[in-house]
Amino acid sequence: MRPPTEPVAAVWFDLYGTLVDLDPLVDACEAGAPGHGADVAEGWRARQVEASWLRTLMDRWAPFETVTREALAAAAADVGIDVATLDALDGAFERLPARQGAAECLRALRDLGVPTGILSNGSATMIERTSRGAGLRDLVDEVRSVDAVRRYKPDPAVYRLATEASGLEAARVGFVTANGWDAAGAAAFGFRVAWLRPARDVVVAAVVPAVGVPDPVVATWNELPRLFGLSH
Amino acid sequence: MRPPTEPVAAVWFDLYGTLVDLDPLVDACEAGAPGHGADVAEGWRARQVEASWLRTLMDRWAPFETVTREALAAAAADVGIDVATLDALDGAFERLPARQGAAECLRALRDLGVPTGILSNGSATMIERTSRGAGLRDLVDEVRSVDAVRRYKPDPAVYRLATEASGLEAARVGFVTANGWDAAGAAAFGFRVAWLRPARDVVVAAVVPAVGVPDPVVATWNELPRLFGLSH
Repeated sequence: MRPPTEPVAAVWFDLYGTLVDLDPLVDACEAGAPGHGADVAEGWRARQVEASWLRTLMDRWAPFETVTREALAAAAADVGIDVATLDALDGAFERLPARQGAAECLRALRDLGVPTGILSNGSATMIERTSRGAGLRDLVDEVRSVDAVRRYKPDPAVYRLATEASGLEAARVGFVTANGWDAAGAAAFGFRVAWLRPARDVVVAAVVPAVGVPDPVVATWNELPRLFGLSH
Repeated sequence: MRPPTEPVAAVWFDLYGTLVDLDPLVDACEAGAPGHGADVAEGWRARQVEASWLRTLMDRWAPFETVTREALAAAAADVGIDVATLDALDGAFERLPARQGAAECLRALRDLGVPTGILSNGSATMIERTSRGAGLRDLVDEVRSVDAVRRYKPDPAVYRLATEASGLEAARVGFVTANGWDAAGAAAFGFRVAWLRPARDVVVAAVVPAVGVPDPVVATWNELPRLFGLSH
């Protein structure tokens, strides 16, 4: 058993909901669909995630731009809205702000000399635009998109992109995500996972219990360096 | 292109929500958790399906009994109920009645000389108990459980169990399901799909649009023989 205080050799981050904040989608949806903003935003995200899982299970890849656009149309239909009224939401996932604490955490890891990366379901283009727009791109060393494997998380092939990029075994890698199903998948892959558990999971999914791994550790931004054995 | 009226050579059915009715779960949940029956029942099914997808994506198989038991605990926790009060629900998926029209449809197919089967996420034991309890077991010729491949729908390996059992290519097989994501997966696999679309999908999922196949045809029990080219 590796003692929990042994330092990780790299820290990778999920992007959507973790480094960047999805909450502004509510106001953006409200502007196009008055009275339905919260429902459309929540449905949009839930269907985006659901479609990414189903497409992977069916081996029917489409880029995340397509998945995201289709998910908005489905969410609009769910509440009886014409998706054409939501044209202004095109590209909204690329205009999300950094979550409070994210930039500070990345700077702290840089000061500690720890390599960092973003591992996201987004396309390479989406990740680039989103992370630049949020002012985070220059704070991370590596970026990996699912584009390279044409499968979505929590497929192990996606997590393997991070271990390959870092040249590390999974147990030496810290992984940070706010999405419960991503935390479960990363833990199943063998990462040391910090789950920035939101007050309420935007997606219906929480962690799959008992996937044969320790439960991901629930943590806050400030706790990450200590959790990953990088400070005391 | 195969003309739509060419007859299929076998018809396979999904079990939970399709041949058997999930609605009685609401009353069963209400008995154990007064005031929360509908929420617990809907959450139970949604988390059962979600966990089956995630476990398949993560390659962390567990039998459907385990998935179902864990899903009930998660659904109970979601509404703040102690799952111990729901002990009476153990095995509830094996005590579901046939949906109205299911037995008649199976008898009609038998009269037409068309081989039938059940292809379900349930374990072999669950399928046997459920289909016997609902009075349907003797009306179908074949039964296949995901146990054989240790993956859940909509993984193509599951649908392949039906083509192998029937000794037919997918395009000769009719597939009937009430679950939108199952209809999409079966269509992606190449089956001729009839989607017994419920008034409201119990699960959050609907069909993934544009998976590169024609949309599954929405149908009722009575329409199946004609839809599958078996009558006029």
